[in-house]
Amino acid sequence: MTRALRELGEDKLLAQFFSRLNRNSRVVIGAGDDCAVVKFPGAKNWLLLKTDCVVEEVHFTKETNARAVGWKAMMRAFSDFAAMSGIPEFALITLAAAGKKTESWVGELYRGLNRAAARFDVAIVGGETSETAGPTVIVVSVAGFVERHRCLLRSNGKSNDDLFVTGELGGSIRGRHLRFVARIDEARWLTANFKVHAMMDLSDGLGTDLPRLARASKLGFTIDQDALPISRGCTVQQAISDGEDYELLFAISPRDRTRLEKFWRKKFPKLPLTRIGKLNRQSAISDQHLPCGYVHFSQRR
Amino acid sequence: MTRALRELGEDKLLAQFFSRLNRNSRVVIGAGDDCAVVKFPGAKNWLLLKTDCVVEEVHFTKETNARAVGWKAMMRAFSDFAAMSGIPEFALITLAAAGKKTESWVGELYRGLNRAAARFDVAIVGGETSETAGPTVIVVSVAGFVERHRCLLRSNGKSNDDLFVTGELGGSIRGRHLRFVARIDEARWLTANFKVHAMMDLSDGLGTDLPRLARASKLGFTIDQDALPISRGCTVQQAISDGEDYELLFAISPRDRTRLEKFWRKKFPKLPLTRIGKLNRQSAISDQHLPCGYVHFSQRR
Repeated sequence: MTRALRELGEDKLLAQFFSRLNRNSRVVIGAGDDCAVVKFPGAKNWLLLKTDCVVEEVHFTKETNARAVGWKAMMRAFSDFAAMSGIPEFALITLAAAGKKTESWVGELYRGLNRAAARFDVAIVGGETSETAGPTVIVVSVAGFVERHRCLLRSNGKSNDDLFVTGELGGSIRGRHLRFVARIDEARWLTANFKVHAMMDLSDGLGTDLPRLARASKLGFTIDQDALPISRGCTVQQAISDGEDYELLFAISPRDRTRLEKFWRKKFPKLPLTRIGKLNRQSAISDQHLPCGYVHFSQRR
Repeated sequence: MTRALRELGEDKLLAQFFSRLNRNSRVVIGAGDDCAVVKFPGAKNWLLLKTDCVVEEVHFTKETNARAVGWKAMMRAFSDFAAMSGIPEFALITLAAAGKKTESWVGELYRGLNRAAARFDVAIVGGETSETAGPTVIVVSVAGFVERHRCLLRSNGKSNDDLFVTGELGGSIRGRHLRFVARIDEARWLTANFKVHAMMDLSDGLGTDLPRLARASKLGFTIDQDALPISRGCTVQQAISDGEDYELLFAISPRDRTRLEKFWRKKFPKLPLTRIGKLNRQSAISDQHLPCGYVHFSQRR
């Protein structure tokens, strides 16, 4: 009980604390999915809530353009809305700025936050700015909604579902992580036209995130490594482990495959959609198609 | 434009950035009141959003009991709901813990957060835990609601209104700031039974907060210094400047005075309610009843 925090993995820490937390009858999904899903009194739609944190020297460096930092901080939270096919509406910002940051740096940061918010007609409705002796921390809290029948969880994948990813994986650190646009339009189009079973956004890398989706759905998976949409100049390993892709990963019945691929190409001609594998009933480790050494890919059930 | 942040007052900084931020037609009140007030699609009640930040060495010390830190972090946000007569329902927590904090410290922190949430049947629906090289920071984001006709702003005070405060002021640092209960029950009782015009919670001290309420209402004020409910062992100066009282300050027509005082004593016999002054049309500095030297009390219009 006196272990230092760093000895605990994040998932384990969260599971340990959040399983004991107070709930009430208005909670549909608490901690554990991309956003919290709750009921709002008198409304048919569900209220979605998400808070996300960006830290200097972890998510950006001293040299990163402040406007890009703001854009990223806001888009990361939006990406979690995309994951559930939700619509973000309102954002609150908490900034703990390192003492050396200038007014102009903070101004540029807010410009980036604001631009990202405007991209999806989200209003920034408040926040707080303070100083810290430590690294700069930006916390973005977003509220929005999703129609009940369009809310996508990680946990509803079916055995034999096809697994799809949008875009290309790996190498985000070379720049994409600072200028990506959350896949909200794509997610909304998907749920308007198809019966997707399960979805999430890829923030920690396919190698970490796919097992989370499979585990939440109580299923195994197989991956066709040769099919992975790898960013130019990246290795398979990078595509699986780099993280910060902010692409969508979803599971859908193979019956929808042909129609999905055809209409996707028409609707989003510039954005690849790739079938990378399948969900299945296997409970054993399903990484026969993956290069060895991916601890992340071990399937703990 | 290259001034360091510390040279800017918080109010000024916020005003500067928030005036330019993106809004949308669903925003009733953005930054500037205790909570943001927004419309939720399809609902009659308004959605209230608040995010609040507690920082080591500012709001608590290394020696402070972790459970008390958690309680305080949650109750501070609830106090802003009380200020608007709102009901908190859901909370999200972002913890950036200093590397030296132990698992047991984090466990106690969450126990405190959870206990405070349970006090008002609030569900903790998610959060994130990371490490920081700087001081520990806890950000609590809360969503809830208020009926439209019961939502109290700072800006609706009327000239000649009586000003009331709950409880006693000053000396919170001796312990009350770690164990206070947000005045949600009192606020809800007030709006169920009286037509309160304007309200806020006292977090930065009467000397800072009352001018904010008056300014928002475009009015001046007078204070009867001898009437102030001063905590035992405190000076007038401490009662005005200490801060962290987390009491309610509200403005109500003098016509309601007798009925309010009578029914309050019956309903909350242990909690003082004190008439401390009035709102008025004076635009000049209205501190004739206050000891000299309170910069905070200067009324900038």
